[in-house]
Amino acid sequence: MTDTAASPRSTVRRLPDRGAYDAPTLQRILGEGLLCHVGIVQDGQPFTLPMAFGVDEEFLYLHGSSASRLMKTIASGAPISVAVSLIDGLVLARSAFHHSMNYRSVMVLGAAEELTQEADKLRALKIISDHVIDGRYEESRAPTEIELKATMVARLPLKEASAKIRTGPPVDDAEDLDFPVWAGVLPMRRVFGPPISETPDHEVPKYVAEYSRENHARPG
Amino acid sequence: MTDTAASPRSTVRRLPDRGAYDAPTLQRILGEGLLCHVGIVQDGQPFTLPMAFGVDEEFLYLHGSSASRLMKTIASGAPISVAVSLIDGLVLARSAFHHSMNYRSVMVLGAAEELTQEADKLRALKIISDHVIDGRYEESRAPTEIELKATMVARLPLKEASAKIRTGPPVDDAEDLDFPVWAGVLPMRRVFGPPISETPDHEVPKYVAEYSRENHARPG
Repeated sequence: MTDTAASPRSTVRRLPDRGAYDAPTLQRILGEGLLCHVGIVQDGQPFTLPMAFGVDEEFLYLHGSSASRLMKTIASGAPISVAVSLIDGLVLARSAFHHSMNYRSVMVLGAAEELTQEADKLRALKIISDHVIDGRYEESRAPTEIELKATMVARLPLKEASAKIRTGPPVDDAEDLDFPVWAGVLPMRRVFGPPISETPDHEVPKYVAEYSRENHARPG
Repeated sequence: MTDTAASPRSTVRRLPDRGAYDAPTLQRILGEGLLCHVGIVQDGQPFTLPMAFGVDEEFLYLHGSSASRLMKTIASGAPISVAVSLIDGLVLARSAFHHSMNYRSVMVLGAAEELTQEADKLRALKIISDHVIDGRYEESRAPTEIELKATMVARLPLKEASAKIRTGPPVDDAEDLDFPVWAGVLPMRRVFGPPISETPDHEVPKYVAEYSRENHARPG
């Protein structure tokens, strides 16, 4: 992944100072994300699909059922878009107009290609699994040949991508600063647990007990 | 909003027992959602945009800058899709193949229309604000005429919509139940706070101090 992932289509035009295009920033946001939303078009109608995903330096990986018509469209090489969005807090300004959210989001545009070789598929599935919960894949019962055939895997190059980030306190107009209302930021974070066990004979693994998304951000 | 929001395009085909189409279920998921992802098409390229939103019985409301080319596309009456996705937990099965997430998601398809009348725009902006944080709008400095002109507002009918829901423990194949690994669910939730104040002279309002998304789910 290069630091020049901006294109005319992926460049942040509204509030351009919120745009970022460097690989470490993009990788960090992608790393914290648990879900992406994939945009595809079928018969002129856009669809927006929540999906798990994984990333390495060069690609974003997606998987789904081989029988899924939406997954087939994703893997067909048609243009798609992928968004990963993290909310960090609500921004409460004095004016209704300047209310906002603190967020970090990444948009990736491009065409995905299907992975058809067994070794490539297994590697991608491990990347997706590690992305969701690192350490789990090695402990799980590995995919069988039938399961692999039932799973379609695709990768999207991380070439045309941009991040959009808002941080910090509300920014009100000078004439509103004395408006008599509380203003500030209400931070948001995701918390996990306690685990609900199906297997009382087995201890909860450390990667489950200590799970947090911040742990999962790739160093970038 | 009727209970028959299913259409051939919005019907859940993969794992159809995860599909739901009744208004209370759809409204509850939309009510807990803080962000939606809007899918649009420009020159054949899909874009996936994270946006705030609000809902009433009949419509989903979106707003953005009047200068935004993406917002103009949303408000143009072109086909769009909106997804609202909540993750409730990670589902860790014995087999890699049966790993999943517990989630609740809604997809709405259709065409939005721009609201051009001042009264309609103000009502929609209050609906969006109330959706994000109920009680805030009344206390904020109201929009001026210039701010209203700078804001484009659109509504999408909640007519063609579906929910997809997964709950409960992992479902492994019978032959894997003795596989020697912990299995279960790692629940996830969003927590808010503590508030970061910009206005030490004002007390933190109750709707900020006691904020939670569960409070914001409409009774449906």
